[in-house]
Amino acid sequence: MRQIQGILPVPTRGRGLVEITRVANDWLAEAGAVTGLLTVFVRHTSASLLVQENADPEVLRDLERWFARAVPDGDPLFRHVEEGPDDMSAHVRGALTQTSIGIPVDGGAMRLGTWQGLFLWEHRHAPHAREVVLHYVGD
Amino acid sequence: MRQIQGILPVPTRGRGLVEITRVANDWLAEAGAVTGLLTVFVRHTSASLLVQENADPEVLRDLERWFARAVPDGDPLFRHVEEGPDDMSAHVRGALTQTSIGIPVDGGAMRLGTWQGLFLWEHRHAPHAREVVLHYVGD
Amino acid sequence: MRQIQGILPVPTRGRGLVEITRVANDWLAEAGAVTGLLTVFVRHTSASLLVQENADPEVLRDLERWFARAVPDGDPLFRHVEEGPDDMSAHVRGALTQTSIGIPVDGGAMRLGTWQGLFLWEHRHAPHAREVVLHYVGD
Repeated sequence: MRQIQGILPVPTRGRGLVEITRVANDWLAEAGAVTGLLTVFVRHTSASLLVQENADPEVLRDLERWFARAVPDGDPLFRHVEEGPDDMSAHVRGALTQTSIGIPVDGGAMRLGTWQGLFLWEHRHAPHAREVVLHYVGD
Repeated sequence: MRQIQGILPVPTRGRGLVEITRVANDWLAEAGAVTGLLTVFVRHTSASLLVQENADPEVLRDLERWFARAVPDGDPLFRHVEEGPDDMSAHVRGALTQTSIGIPVDGGAMRLGTWQGLFLWEHRHAPHAREVVLHYVGD
Repeated sequence: MRQIQGILPVPTRGRGLVEITRVANDWLAEAGAVTGLLTVFVRHTSASLLVQENADPEVLRDLERWFARAVPDGDPLFRHVEEGPDDMSAHVRGALTQTSIGIPVDGGAMRLGTWQGLFLWEHRHAPHAREVVLHYVGD
């Protein structure tokens, strides 16, 4: 048993889901991972992680549409508004999704289902330089 | 320290929560697990995982009622509708709950609270054959 | 590689977010943790875990406001009402947030982002004695 830890920089182009499946699998390959557990952790409170369908891009747009309606930008309910109308909505969207996901690894890659991809979800409208911590424990 | 990984098939009978507490603990027992960490990962984007109360079944029905109202099937907002009115709502329900849960193990079983059970949540109306990956690291 | 497991008692004063960043890092320090993975698991279904901003307390109040509106206490939709109007809403709030969070550890502390704190979210109005299980695997 051994472990490896690293940082994955994820540049975003504003609100939306950025697929990081391949870069995460590339990191595992470089680490020589075979069988184990990958933990993915996002170091932000206005971006989050999600495993979702990566086949039809309309799924990602529908996710955006549902969250935009359920957690509207500029909601008069919010008082934490210093950084603009998408500041507090970004925090709520982060709270409703994941900060951390653990994914079993086998054959040197994440054991995702056929239609699953790993995404960082940027919740702010402006582009950001995000950081994801990767931790692998296994063979 | 050692690790074990396996697949748990979970047949579902359509939308609803299927308790997998016992089969997960049985898997730990067969693996000879004592103290460690169990990671449970669902390989689907229209089914998810949840730790919830397993005492009063009305709790599970109320969870269904709340999600059915918050994420209605056939919502005109959705454009990913190829597989029917419960397709995109299933993805949103999946995004709002968990794909992966890490549960400490002690005495050979998951260290759940008195009222906690581990569930796979089927979000589609049709029965499905679901797959959950189990990863154990520990003694 | 080694592992340590322990229980963190978290007393709450009723509904609200209780920061446990420091007690979790203290536990890691006592355990002599350096580099590894901390898994935090809450043993309740009406309290949950969240990594969120710990700089402006208004963020936490806005989170409460949004959840109070989205999952209202005493919703006539709910039939599991034995323990009062905040019973079932607490379960739904728990389902929408996290039961378990995995956080990479480096330099003996959780590798949180600059603005991130780890919180237990009490969803019931009455004070409770909550229990969190901590599991560390690493050096």
